[in-house]
Formats: sequence, structure tokens, C-alpha cells
Amino acid sequence: LLRNIVEGGYRGAVYPVNPRGGEIFGRRAFPSLNDIPEPPDLCLIVLEAETSLSVVERCVERGVPAAIVIAAGFSEAGPAGENLERDLVAAARGGIALIGPNCMGVLANGIGLNAVGYVTLRPPKGSVSVVSQSGNIGTQLLMTAEGRGVGIEKSISVGNQALITAADVLDYLADDEATRAVIVYVEEMEDGRRFFDVARRATPKKPIVLMYGGATEAGSRAAASHTGAMAGSADVLAAAMWQAGVITTTDPDESLDLAACLAHLPLPRGRRVGVVTLGGGWGVLTADELVRNGLSLAELPGELLDELDGVLPSFWSRGNPVDLVASVEGDVPAHVLELLACCPAVDSVITLALIGSPSSGRTGRTNGQGDEAALEDASPSLSALGSRDLNAGEHAFLRRAAELMEQTGKPILSVPLIPVAHTVFADLGRFAPVVLTSPRAAVRALARMSWYVERRGRRARCGPAVADE
Amino acid sequence: LLRNIVEGGYRGAVYPVNPRGGEIFGRRAFPSLNDIPEPPDLCLIVLEAETSLSVVERCVERGVPAAIVIAAGFSEAGPAGENLERDLVAAARGGIALIGPNCMGVLANGIGLNAVGYVTLRPPKGSVSVVSQSGNIGTQLLMTAEGRGVGIEKSISVGNQALITAADVLDYLADDEATRAVIVYVEEMEDGRRFFDVARRATPKKPIVLMYGGATEAGSRAAASHTGAMAGSADVLAAAMWQAGVITTTDPDESLDLAACLAHLPLPRGRRVGVVTLGGGWGVLTADELVRNGLSLAELPGELLDELDGVLPSFWSRGNPVDLVASVEGDVPAHVLELLACCPAVDSVITLALIGSPSSGRTGRTNGQGDEAALEDASPSLSALGSRDLNAGEHAFLRRAAELMEQTGKPILSVPLIPVAHTVFADLGRFAPVVLTSPRAAVRALARMSWYVERRGRRARCGPAVADE
Repeated sequence: LLRNIVEGGYRGAVYPVNPRGGEIFGRRAFPSLNDIPEPPDLCLIVLEAETSLSVVERCVERGVPAAIVIAAGFSEAGPAGENLERDLVAAARGGIALIGPNCMGVLANGIGLNAVGYVTLRPPKGSVSVVSQSGNIGTQLLMTAEGRGVGIEKSISVGNQALITAADVLDYLADDEATRAVIVYVEEMEDGRRFFDVARRATPKKPIVLMYGGATEAGSRAAASHTGAMAGSADVLAAAMWQAGVITTTDPDESLDLAACLAHLPLPRGRRVGVVTLGGGWGVLTADELVRNGLSLAELPGELLDELDGVLPSFWSRGNPVDLVASVEGDVPAHVLELLACCPAVDSVITLALIGSPSSGRTGRTNGQGDEAALEDASPSLSALGSRDLNAGEHAFLRRAAELMEQTGKPILSVPLIPVAHTVFADLGRFAPVVLTSPRAAVRALARMSWYVERRGRRARCGPAVADE
Repeated sequence: LLRNIVEGGYRGAVYPVNPRGGEIFGRRAFPSLNDIPEPPDLCLIVLEAETSLSVVERCVERGVPAAIVIAAGFSEAGPAGENLERDLVAAARGGIALIGPNCMGVLANGIGLNAVGYVTLRPPKGSVSVVSQSGNIGTQLLMTAEGRGVGIEKSISVGNQALITAADVLDYLADDEATRAVIVYVEEMEDGRRFFDVARRATPKKPIVLMYGGATEAGSRAAASHTGAMAGSADVLAAAMWQAGVITTTDPDESLDLAACLAHLPLPRGRRVGVVTLGGGWGVLTADELVRNGLSLAELPGELLDELDGVLPSFWSRGNPVDLVASVEGDVPAHVLELLACCPAVDSVITLALIGSPSSGRTGRTNGQGDEAALEDASPSLSALGSRDLNAGEHAFLRRAAELMEQTGKPILSVPLIPVAHTVFADLGRFAPVVLTSPRAAVRALARMSWYVERRGRRARCGPAVADE
């Protein structure tokens, strides 16, 4: 944990404490909390359960306002642990904000505070924050965010939630200016009413993506043995979250997709989608998915069709999806994207196979194993293209998409033919292009975004329910 | 196309034909079909539409048994093209098996025949075959298969299906010994009854994964402008495919996941799933997904719990999912996997985060952009681990999984914490470990496999319906 803090580049003062003194990672270790020259703002306690309790007591004496207890061995570990946790809470109520116990720590990426135990997490800086009751899910989300280039602002592992709960953290993040979207994983709703109230106040300010573990009886039994949580009724919860305007999902990858879209794209003003595709098959599947997800293919007005006639070959399909019929010479894809995005009958655009495809300069070769290893002129592995692997034309296309989002306020989602490792291209503008892996993923994300916008708008129009909050 | 054939390593004779003669890729070009010393087994026609017709006529005269017409400009391109296609079919009926027109060609990977136009496709050799009406979808599937290490045996782009249809190809693949699973993409069921009959005869022999484009009205309109296809009623089709034992999906990535599982894993004999996980959260989400997908968490018998007591720390959860509570020292994960796989109450096993996680030796560092670029000791990019990036412990774990599948005849699916680029580890045995990207993907694949087994078994028990075919 200390290594993570030191290597994470935190610029504030860090005081290691170790009764044996000495140096740790080049810093002098203080024999005890009382030897530190000033009361710290936060005390990270990486000791076994019983010792952690006594340190929390000393923190209260020293006037430390906040502490994180990493250790397990509390309420999740039987009656003795339950007593210990009760004592821990009693001590903390003396005036300390306590996170944990049985948690992985806290990442405050914006200020470079990497107070995470057990593993090293280095997601890029960004505007998605994560609250997780499970260290496992939090770790998975942050490691995946790192690999996929999804920027993270804060991540809080709340563990047993002895004092500070996921609802408390969510309440804080609702007003955190650096956070634009929140992912929450919980298995427990001891105080479901409070979670609902907090969520309802938060969703007009920013979108929340909730993964709820233990929604089924089997999952609930698994959760009970995991965190000692009692799951609530899944149906009641689903209805409450719908009402609160919280987006729910069952899959960690999908929750990261959704958070990336919500944090980086403009929100759609309607459900009419323009689709531009390199080839017909993906256009057909995407049209099917749009309908299944309650979105519609935008009806393109005659003047737009006329304009497209000037750009595309004579045999183009004259409709939406706009099939480029492999016409990807020069500026054609960007030009078609611009015409679609600027059309008043279109609320959002999905582009298919305009990056990461042979037509955008991919040869289809791999540097993989076996026979292919012999190829001298191999391009980067097709397993997934990192953002550095995109070629100049692909970068230019994504930059144009970022400009068009700024100009039109409409979201543009891209699906590459070959998987692209990076999901978010955050350096391209205020609104960053988002690349998802399949037409289905892109359509589902747009549908959830539309739902969020409409739900938020309806509550705003109804007045008091939000106004008096 | 010729470059693909030459570089693809086809060992049979290849005769380029060009009226101007000369050399092409180091081979002498013959001025005409008649100048070739022997009638070829297959003629690949890469000429514009009208010329293609006259070459087909000459093929018939020369006694060529099969031809592929790549050119567009036939029935998908208006009345003149329709007439041309009618003439093409009339000519071919003179005694030639015709694929196309308006197609991408054929890949016969087992014999190194890479007769694909427009793009270069180099998927590894394997046992999944693809039939696609859309060149775009076929290309995407094969490029993704290449990146993900899913082995392909044959891929046939049927285009306009003027003579040979997707149903004809499926009928052939049903008896093709090198093919263990088939992916079909169609937008058209002109003769739905025949497709149904062919599929029904094929599914007892091998599994079929069908993507059907144009299932909704909007998708159907898009399909009409794409291939001139008239989509059938989606409900009728869905019911027919259910009856025929065909697995249907709407997503290309999912179809590749399913085909990889069906081609490489033993089929499950029941719906009771054992789950072994590094941490609790994923176990909870997986338990939920199992229930949602009609599978069940296997009830572990007392003697198995006792054996696991000997392997795991005293505070383990004593139930399914088996939470290793981060006990991953040495051989523990493989040992637990073995106990689960060998238990008679377990029909299949899902492992969560036992590869691609910090506990399997991942540091969580990246060689990505920005701040991280400075790190000297960066591990391979986390964006996706290629099969070569797996460490020795991870390889040993997957090898053990392959052995256990051979020994028990039960499927074992693994979900890594960090995405792993390769899906199939085909060199590890008769049954190859399959790695999918999320608990949801793994559960859905197992559920579809179970459905296929049950549907096939029911039809077999009912007797005549299958027996007389």
C-alpha cells in the first residue's frame, strides 16, 4: 500500500508509522501516531483486526478526521469479528470518518493518492468514479479501465461498510465536480430507503450505473457468505432504481461501457439514430438491435439524401443505415458522418467498421503465432489495437467525430471492425469519442443514455419531487 | 485475390489467366481458359459482371466443375442486373457449381486455399466454419477469429446465392469431418422450408449458430437495400430454429464465443455448474447470471466440502461458488478445479479471475500512454494479454483444465480478471480451454450449450424424426 502511494506520485506529506522505526521506501518511519509532527488528514491502517481497533482509538485521541481499515476478520468472520466491528464503530463515532474494514482502500486519481492495498492499480486519470462493496469487482473494473483507457477519478472500496456506506460515498460523489459518472457495486441494501433517497438526489446531477449482486436467490446466498449481506427483493430494488433514474446492469464490462459513454459523450436529445456503415451486414444487425432496444432508425430527409448522392457512388442504398458500399477513399467517411450529425432529424450517430478495418488501412495480417510468425511485414497484433496503433486516418476520423460532438451536441459512437483496445479517446476534446466492441454494445449504451435523459427530464418537469431536494 | 492464394500457401496448381499474358506473382499467366493444360477444379472469376457471365459459359464448355463469381452488379443492382443474374444461373445450370455473384470468395484453411477477394484474412487453422451472406460480417468474424485465436476451417461467402445457397453450403458442412461447429449469417430465407430441413438434419451431427439479419421491420428494410433480400417473419423463424435445434444469436462476437465453446469443449451433461472464484463479487454476479439463464449452482456434497477444507483456509465459504478468498499459492486453484470437475454433482465448471489477475502474477502495470510511459519495469500492455503473454503458472493452469476435460468429459470455461486476447488455447489437447471475457458471456455460452445438448437428446429419443433422415 505504501509503495502504491509513493509510486502513485501523491504530492502531500506521507508519514509511515512503524514501532520499529527505520526507513520505508526512502521515508523515515515514525514509531507511533503521536510522533508525527502534525495530525494527518487521513490514517491508513494496514494491520490485523484487533490492532486496527486500537489504532482507530488512538486516531480519535490525536484528532485524525478520517481512517481506512483494510483488515478482514470483522463482521464477515463470525461472532467474535462482529463484536470487534461493533467496538470499531463505537470508537470511530468518537469523531472519525471510517472506511472499511475488510476493504481494498481508496484511489483519488486526480490528486495522485493511490491508497490501495494488495494490488497495484494505475488507471488513467479521468471522470468516472467507482464505489464497490467487493474488492474483487472494484479491482476488475479498475484494471479493465486501465487496459481500455477509461479514465478514473476516484475509487472507493467500502468493504463491510461499518460506518461509511456505499450510499454515503454516492452522496459525496454526487457533488464531486471531478466526477461525471459513477459506477456502484453493492450486494447489500441494509438501508434501502436511504440508498434510494441518495440515488434520487444524485441522478439529476450525474448518471449512476448500478450493479447489484445477489439479485437472485442463489446469488443472494453467495453474497451472504461473501460479505454477510442480506439481499433485498430484486423486484422491489429494480422498481426503486427505475424510479430513481439509476441505470442498472448485471455485467462489469457493460457498466464500464456505459460509464464511459455517460462521462464522455453528449447526452442524446431523442431516440432517432443515424447509422453509417462500411458494409451492409452490420447495418442490418444494427437496425435490428435499434428496434429491439426501443430506438429508431432516423428517417433521412430528401435534401440529406441529395447531399449524400453527391458524396457516395450512384448505387448507394439511399436510406439509413447509410452503407458506404466500401467507398472510403479520402474524406468520404468523415464527410458522411458530418452530414448525418448535422441533420436535424438525427439525434445520435453510430459508425460501423470505419476504423480498425481493411478500408482504414488494416492489412488483416497478424504477428500472432505459428505460420503467421514468419511474416516479416506483420502489422501490430490484431488481438486489439491500442490507441497508439491507430493510423493517421483513423485518428483524423475520431478527431472529426470529437469536433462534431462539440458542434452539434449529439453523441457519436464508433464500432471498429477489429477490436480496438481503447474505449475512450479523451485527449481529443471536451467530448471524447467512445469506441465499443460490437453493434449490440453501442445500441444498448445509446438506449440506456436515452432512458436516463428522458427519466431525468420527466422528473424535472414534474417539479417538486426534484425541486425540493 | 491471387496474392492471397499465393501467400496463403496453397499447394495445388494455380493458373492465372490474363489475355495480356505475362507473369503475375511469379506465375505465368495464360491468355485464356482454354490455354490451361488441364481443366481446373475451380475457377475464380474476378472480372466485372458481364465479362464474368461469358467466363462462366466458357467454364461449362471446358468442363470446369465449379466457379466463384466475385463481381457485384447483379440482382442487387436493379432490373438489368437481375437479367444478368438469370443468364448467369442459366449458364451455370449447364453443369457448374456456382458460388456468388457479389461475394468475397472462399477460404479453405485446412488445405491452405485462401481464395478471398478485397481483404487478406489469415485466421488460424481450426474447426469452426462460417457461411455468410454478407461479406462484411464474414470478414469481421474472420478478422476477429484471427485476433482471438479462434481456429477456422472453412469460410464461404455466398453473396447473392444465385445458384448455391447458404442452405446448400450448410448441408455440405454438416458432413464435413474437419468442421465441428458452423456459424451462419443470413438475411434471406427465400426457401425457409429447405433451410429448416437442412438445419434439422445437420444439428444432430454438429452444432449450428445462426445470426439472422432483418429480424425486425427496420432491419428487414435495411436488408432489402443491401442484398435485395426479403426477410421472413422473425417469430416463425425463431420457432422453426428452436425446433431444428439451431442456436440463434444477434451478435457476431457472441456467435464466435459460442462456436469456440461448441467446437472445443466437451458438451455438458446437465445444468449443474461449479464455480471457483478468486474473490466474492464475481462469484455473486455469476450465481445471479446462472439463475437468470436457467442453469443452477451445483450443490456440493459433504465429502467434497471436507476435501476442500483440507485445501482452503478455515474461513472459506463452504459452498458453491467456491471462493478461494485469494488463496492462490502454488497449486491451490488447480487442485480446487480438479476436485470440482471430478465431483459427480457437477456438470461443468466456470473459473473466475484465476488467470490474468494480480494473483496469477500480474502487476497491474501498463505500458500505455501518458504518465505510465515512464515506468521502466512495465509488463505487457494490459489492454489484452495474448496467449504468449500468459505466464508459466497460467499456462500450467490451462493445461490442467485441458487434462481435466479429457478425463471427466465436462466443459471448463475460464474468465480472466484482465481481458486475455486469445479465446481458444487449441494446442493444449483434444479439448481446448476456452477463455471468455465476462461471467455473463461464460454463463450464456454454457446455457446455450446445455440447450443444444437437451434439444438434440430429445429429438434422438423421439426417434423417427431424426432416425429416418
